[in-house]
Amino acid sequence: MNIKTIGVLTSGGDAPGMNAAVRAVVRTGIFNGLNVLGIKKGYHGLVHGDITEMSLSSVADIIHRGGTTLQTARSKEFMTEEGQRKALNIMEVFGIEGLIVVGGDGSFKGAVELARKGARVIGVPGTIDNDIPFTDYTIGFDTAVNTVVDAIGRIRDTTSSHNRANIIEVMGRNSGCIALHAGLAGGAESIIIPEVRYDIDEVCKRIMQGRNRGKLHSIIVLAEGVGGAFEMARTIEEKINVETRVTILGHVQRGGSPTAFDRIMASRLGARAVELLMEGQTTKMVGFYNNKVHEVDLEKVLAAKKKFPSEMYALAKILSI
Amino acid sequence: MNIKTIGVLTSGGDAPGMNAAVRAVVRTGIFNGLNVLGIKKGYHGLVHGDITEMSLSSVADIIHRGGTTLQTARSKEFMTEEGQRKALNIMEVFGIEGLIVVGGDGSFKGAVELARKGARVIGVPGTIDNDIPFTDYTIGFDTAVNTVVDAIGRIRDTTSSHNRANIIEVMGRNSGCIALHAGLAGGAESIIIPEVRYDIDEVCKRIMQGRNRGKLHSIIVLAEGVGGAFEMARTIEEKINVETRVTILGHVQRGGSPTAFDRIMASRLGARAVELLMEGQTTKMVGFYNNKVHEVDLEKVLAAKKKFPSEMYALAKILSI
Amino acid sequence: MNIKTIGVLTSGGDAPGMNAAVRAVVRTGIFNGLNVLGIKKGYHGLVHGDITEMSLSSVADIIHRGGTTLQTARSKEFMTEEGQRKALNIMEVFGIEGLIVVGGDGSFKGAVELARKGARVIGVPGTIDNDIPFTDYTIGFDTAVNTVVDAIGRIRDTTSSHNRANIIEVMGRNSGCIALHAGLAGGAESIIIPEVRYDIDEVCKRIMQGRNRGKLHSIIVLAEGVGGAFEMARTIEEKINVETRVTILGHVQRGGSPTAFDRIMASRLGARAVELLMEGQTTKMVGFYNNKVHEVDLEKVLAAKKKFPSEMYALAKILSI
Amino acid sequence: MNIKTIGVLTSGGDAPGMNAAVRAVVRTGIFNGLNVLGIKKGYHGLVHGDITEMSLSSVADIIHRGGTTLQTARSKEFMTEEGQRKALNIMEVFGIEGLIVVGGDGSFKGAVELARKGARVIGVPGTIDNDIPFTDYTIGFDTAVNTVVDAIGRIRDTTSSHNRANIIEVMGRNSGCIALHAGLAGGAESIIIPEVRYDIDEVCKRIMQGRNRGKLHSIIVLAEGVGGAFEMARTIEEKINVETRVTILGHVQRGGSPTAFDRIMASRLGARAVELLMEGQTTKMVGFYNNKVHEVDLEKVLAAKKKFPSEMYALAKILSI
Repeated sequence: MNIKTIGVLTSGGDAPGMNAAVRAVVRTGIFNGLNVLGIKKGYHGLVHGDITEMSLSSVADIIHRGGTTLQTARSKEFMTEEGQRKALNIMEVFGIEGLIVVGGDGSFKGAVELARKGARVIGVPGTIDNDIPFTDYTIGFDTAVNTVVDAIGRIRDTTSSHNRANIIEVMGRNSGCIALHAGLAGGAESIIIPEVRYDIDEVCKRIMQGRNRGKLHSIIVLAEGVGGAFEMARTIEEKINVETRVTILGHVQRGGSPTAFDRIMASRLGARAVELLMEGQTTKMVGFYNNKVHEVDLEKVLAAKKKFPSEMYALAKILSI
Repeated sequence: MNIKTIGVLTSGGDAPGMNAAVRAVVRTGIFNGLNVLGIKKGYHGLVHGDITEMSLSSVADIIHRGGTTLQTARSKEFMTEEGQRKALNIMEVFGIEGLIVVGGDGSFKGAVELARKGARVIGVPGTIDNDIPFTDYTIGFDTAVNTVVDAIGRIRDTTSSHNRANIIEVMGRNSGCIALHAGLAGGAESIIIPEVRYDIDEVCKRIMQGRNRGKLHSIIVLAEGVGGAFEMARTIEEKINVETRVTILGHVQRGGSPTAFDRIMASRLGARAVELLMEGQTTKMVGFYNNKVHEVDLEKVLAAKKKFPSEMYALAKILSI
Repeated sequence: MNIKTIGVLTSGGDAPGMNAAVRAVVRTGIFNGLNVLGIKKGYHGLVHGDITEMSLSSVADIIHRGGTTLQTARSKEFMTEEGQRKALNIMEVFGIEGLIVVGGDGSFKGAVELARKGARVIGVPGTIDNDIPFTDYTIGFDTAVNTVVDAIGRIRDTTSSHNRANIIEVMGRNSGCIALHAGLAGGAESIIIPEVRYDIDEVCKRIMQGRNRGKLHSIIVLAEGVGGAFEMARTIEEKINVETRVTILGHVQRGGSPTAFDRIMASRLGARAVELLMEGQTTKMVGFYNNKVHEVDLEKVLAAKKKFPSEMYALAKILSI
Repeated sequence: MNIKTIGVLTSGGDAPGMNAAVRAVVRTGIFNGLNVLGIKKGYHGLVHGDITEMSLSSVADIIHRGGTTLQTARSKEFMTEEGQRKALNIMEVFGIEGLIVVGGDGSFKGAVELARKGARVIGVPGTIDNDIPFTDYTIGFDTAVNTVVDAIGRIRDTTSSHNRANIIEVMGRNSGCIALHAGLAGGAESIIIPEVRYDIDEVCKRIMQGRNRGKLHSIIVLAEGVGGAFEMARTIEEKINVETRVTILGHVQRGGSPTAFDRIMASRLGARAVELLMEGQTTKMVGFYNNKVHEVDLEKVLAAKKKFPSEMYALAKILSI
């Protein structure tokens, strides 16, 4: 297909590696003779025409930066029929023949709405939560997991004969994916996630068993989708009289220079998104599946639910004895 | 003086760099022909004779480790007259002619009690809180500040047009020292510490001013000595309708591999503590003052209060406009 | 199959994540009622019976440690027929019914030799070089790449109007895999690897083009398989009069706390290796392929050659314009 | 004094923390009602008028960045009488009544030349080498030392029964300060610096002694002022037949996000430099001495030589037994 101008935006919660994806879109586009427009603040900028032409230099020295230089925002206006019309008008005015949306499932829903009204859109999965199906990883997830693992390591350092327990509440919205991966990699004694019912007595038993075996620490990774870190700490103290401290990592998990894995995957997905638009495709997500870049219908992505890796959860239990 | 056997213990909250101090005590002692005994779990181990002979290898490969391999504990027993008697007996039994205590003010109080009953003791300031007078820095403080600064940097990365505010609650007990240093180094918009009365309206005004100047983030560093991060977040949201997130770093600040500064200072203080015992001195603290290792009476340390660096607080206000 | 005792060793160049693999072998083994023996210093320890029984605690607090607590060594003796006989005798004496070898292709050759003589062996790919076929990643590779990317980032920071160029020589033996991934993730201007012929004039041209476009840095990642960093620096200085500095990262790349990715993959591969032995299998490698744990004949692994990801090399060229 | 406009430049080799110093100059200046001009590329920009007005936003989000956003360069022209005249003319044209120079001794010489011709100048010590007298630390030194210590830690991780030795060549020009501090903090077995004659036989003996005591690693930190890492490796291999690897960290040491210590010191020195100009002072260096900000005559700084901390060198020998 003969396409001349494309646009790129980042939307939803920001994630480390979004800049690497945008850089890949811009440079691959320019390499192929396209005009690439950068849309600021996600759909908000699309509705209001907050758009600038990107050059090779616009994306210089951003591959290693956390956050997104294009910024992101939530747009209530874009959720309305009228807002979407405005967005389409803006795309016409700026000559945007294809739009690349880097974001999570909420952002993809918006993209599908635009596609239904005639726009060409490609989604790139960018969210630390790793809750998008048909892609093994989302951009930012690997960085977020490493941030949590670093925090677990620091907490493990600080030991005491009091046999203190520590609860670390981590992000992930309704998904326990960050908690599960970070807990497994960090050697946490318990991992509490929305996908698996938990029993506070088992958590307590694990603490006591560890103590009896001479363990100096007991780390509980708790997904925000379960929540209630402070109440849990109180319950543990009441039940087994073990002093229990709470860490809420919060938005610390959203930042940081992206890992090599996130940068490489983001670069590959961003570049492929441009190629798809050049091939005349639309309403696809570019994912990283079976260690390969592939594409899949966006609507299929929205209809599906990511499979929970129950074998990893089982493994974590065995290894953290 | 002709001393033959010394003991070393770490006490109170653990701090990164305590291992470097112990390593310096052990190796300086052995270099000078002394026997060095390692007392486990602080005063608890002293009361109960949990003591092992240290060799050059006992402290191999620990200079870079967080926490303390000698462990630390609180001992209710040692706070009693009887507990202290027991400790003195143990010192006699093991032939400990001089005791080096690495810890904070609580640990120093215990050391002074032992000294009053005839023991030779030297204190080495080890606590992340930096709340000990007559030493510009305490072991672990520099590491803790860098940990908080790293967290602030990650939060700064994650931007949004919503003009979100972030509160980071940091450690320090009654001292705002970690908050002040980390806030200054991290470029935080507001620093709230026990030493200075704060006005929530000024905090809110700073957020609004930053927003009006185009700032994408607003970071509030809050010392645990003030506390109330979640309530503060709610108040800010009510007053100026700015979404406000909370991070509680907790014990993450106690861990991590010590910085070069902490390792070097700890090594120098630990080595000097041994020399002081060899010189026949007692009831001193080895501090790092005016960039030099010096000694000062332990009782004087306990009687004084660390001066608050008000000029740094004023500077932080100017620089974070 | 009814197996009772297994052994595990790490062999060849050490790699971050080997400890996580050993931990998984030990804990999965014990969980399944097996005795697990740890063999020290690779095949050297097997030949000489340097073997200890592993308990849950033997592998406590090692998941985050670089290097390998079982140590590794090269054994000339094991390369001989006689050495292998000795090893088999030792296996019989200690009752080792299955052996798990964590290492690279050299280590796998040894394992196959043992298998040919009747031993049951399973290989786990552990090497920073990522040069083993039938596994997308090897244990330690992700960590090494991130170490190099961090170094590239630091070099990028230091700018100058002199338009200085920097060459970073990185490890990988005959493979350019570390160089390619780190160069792509670090945004290096040129990546020079054994798999692709390079033209020094093109390297120079890229430096000049970058300079003309206002770039402040020019980073060349050079695989050790090509080598000659200092000569290359001199050539660049002669050809285009651009001051060129050299960094040789060396063994820095072998160390560091393993990334979450390496820890998780190592844990999964180690656990699966135990299962394979319990299933009665032998002479297999457990790999991570298409984002799944799988097994493949060890002889097939040794006969094949890893495919070079030429599309990633092409992408790196486009993105580093 | 009634001063209205000041300028700031960074000069010589860049150092982490220079941005924090510039930020402090700009914001303190503006807070006090001054115009602050940023001069690009050091004296080169001063000679050629490459100057822009700084606002609060010009220095937003730079406190954590390595390098210097004002850039730095060497200017042959400025070394001439004519070049300095030009610089003075430019200062007059732009109304620069006071100039703050962040750099090392070479940069200070230039500043003194300008002062002799009538300009008001204040120097701020910014160099990773820590070779400036009358200041205990220079901006960037703490960061560079931590970078080297991290590299030493990674090398220590990678163990082998071959008893391999590792040489790490570090920066510092004629000063061994980085090598000494990093070697002490990293627990290096030998530290070789220009200030102290070394004996290769003693280096070898230490390696052998360590080996005999069961040490698994032997790390030699070598200052670039001594140099010759590869030759030294060859000599060690010949003399004691221990495989010896070389790491040349190079410009990696110049980069990286500045540590809290460097950011805070840089902020304090930069702010004080502005105050000095407002007080009508000139030809001073602002240093950090005895843990306090102080000022000293620039000419005195240039005439003196930094004292070598021989007691720290002696300590390093004792502790690395």
